[in-house]
Amino acid sequence: MPHADDLYAFLSTTRSIRRISDKPVDPATLERILQAAVWAPSGGNRQPWRMIAVQDRDTKQKLSEIYSAEWATYVDFNMKKVEGMPEEVVQQVAAGLAVGTAMAANLANIPVVVLFVHDPSALYVTDANLGRTPVVGGASLYPAVQNLLLAARAEGLGGVLTTLLSASEPAVRELIGFPADWGLYAMVPLGHPQGNHGPLRRAPLSEMVKYDRWS
Amino acid sequence: MPHADDLYAFLSTTRSIRRISDKPVDPATLERILQAAVWAPSGGNRQPWRMIAVQDRDTKQKLSEIYSAEWATYVDFNMKKVEGMPEEVVQQVAAGLAVGTAMAANLANIPVVVLFVHDPSALYVTDANLGRTPVVGGASLYPAVQNLLLAARAEGLGGVLTTLLSASEPAVRELIGFPADWGLYAMVPLGHPQGNHGPLRRAPLSEMVKYDRWS
Repeated sequence: MPHADDLYAFLSTTRSIRRISDKPVDPATLERILQAAVWAPSGGNRQPWRMIAVQDRDTKQKLSEIYSAEWATYVDFNMKKVEGMPEEVVQQVAAGLAVGTAMAANLANIPVVVLFVHDPSALYVTDANLGRTPVVGGASLYPAVQNLLLAARAEGLGGVLTTLLSASEPAVRELIGFPADWGLYAMVPLGHPQGNHGPLRRAPLSEMVKYDRWS
Repeated sequence: MPHADDLYAFLSTTRSIRRISDKPVDPATLERILQAAVWAPSGGNRQPWRMIAVQDRDTKQKLSEIYSAEWATYVDFNMKKVEGMPEEVVQQVAAGLAVGTAMAANLANIPVVVLFVHDPSALYVTDANLGRTPVVGGASLYPAVQNLLLAARAEGLGGVLTTLLSASEPAVRELIGFPADWGLYAMVPLGHPQGNHGPLRRAPLSEMVKYDRWS
C-alpha cells in the first residue's frame, strides 16, 4: 500500500481546471477516471447515480449553448453583488468570471463532458423539513464527483465540478434522454489542462476546524 | 509526483467503517486528515462549511443519544420496506442495520466524531425550483467529507459519512453552539477499524456509465 503522503500530494494539488485543451483523452485513461467515481460511497450503498460521458461534438455544442445561458445569469448575479465596490474588486471578479465564460463557449472543444444524474427516490433526505434548503441528498452523489476529479488530477488531466446546468434540467433531459424522474446534479468538463494554473488557495486549517464546541 | 495507481490503491479500498476501536487517534494524524478535507473544492471557492472535531466524552455521549433515536427511526423505515420478503432477505437487512445500531450506541467510545456544518446563505442552489428535492447545495459540502474519508483510509483509520443527525439539527446546534442560520450536513465517526472489514462492493462500471446518451 502506498504512503498517506502519496494521497496528500494529489489532494493538495487538485484544483478546478477550466482552461482545457482539445487534445483527446485516451479511452483507457477515461475508463480509469470513471471507475474511480464508482468507488465512492453512497447511502445504503445504493449508488443512486449514473454518469453520461459526452464526447459527441453536436451534443457538447448543445450543452455549451444551454450552459452559456445559465452562466450569463450567474455572471449578472455576481456582478450585481460587487456593484459600487472599488474598481479593483470589480475587475478581479470580472476576470475570474471571464474564465468561466470562455469555458462555457468552448465546451464543444473539450474532449469529454461528464454529466451526473441521480434517482431522487433513492435518497433518504434527513434535512427536508428544517426550514432551510436541503443539501443532504448530495451526500450520496458528490463524493463520486470528487473521486473523479482526484483521479483526473492523478492522470495529469483536469476538470471542474459545475452545477449551473441543473437549472436547465428539462432541456438537458431532452437532449440526453435520462428518465423523467431523474435529476441532473453535476457537469464536469474533462481534459488536459491548457497553460499554467496556479496553486490551490484555501482558508487555513485553524479557520476551518473547531474542537468540541463552536466557540 | 506519485503515480495514479497510488491514488487508486486508496480510492478502491476506502469503505465505510462503522466498527471502530477506542484506541486514541494521534493528534498530528487527526490534523492531517482534517487538512485533507480543507483542500476540497467549493462553489466560488467560498468554503461555506466548518468542522467540529468532537473528542469530549460527554458531548459524544449526547451525540450518541440523539443519533441513536434517529437511527431507530431509520431502522423501522428499512425493516418496513422488507416486510413480507423472504426471511433470508429480512435477516440480511437486519444484520446490516445492527452494525449501525451498535455504532450509534458506541459513539462515546469512538475517539473522534467530526461534525460538518455549513452556511446555507453561501450556496447557489440551481435545482431549488425543479419540483424535486434540491441536492445541489451539497456540491460545495460533500467533496470535503470524501477527502476526509480518503485521508483517514490512507492513515490506516476509518470512518463513515452519516447524515441522520441532520434530522435533529436543532438539538445538535444547542449542544455544539453553531450559529442559528447554519446547518448540520454530516457526522463522521473516526478511529482505528476494529476487526475485519470486507472489500468494497460496487456496481460494475458498465452499469454506472453511459456514453453520449442515456440509452
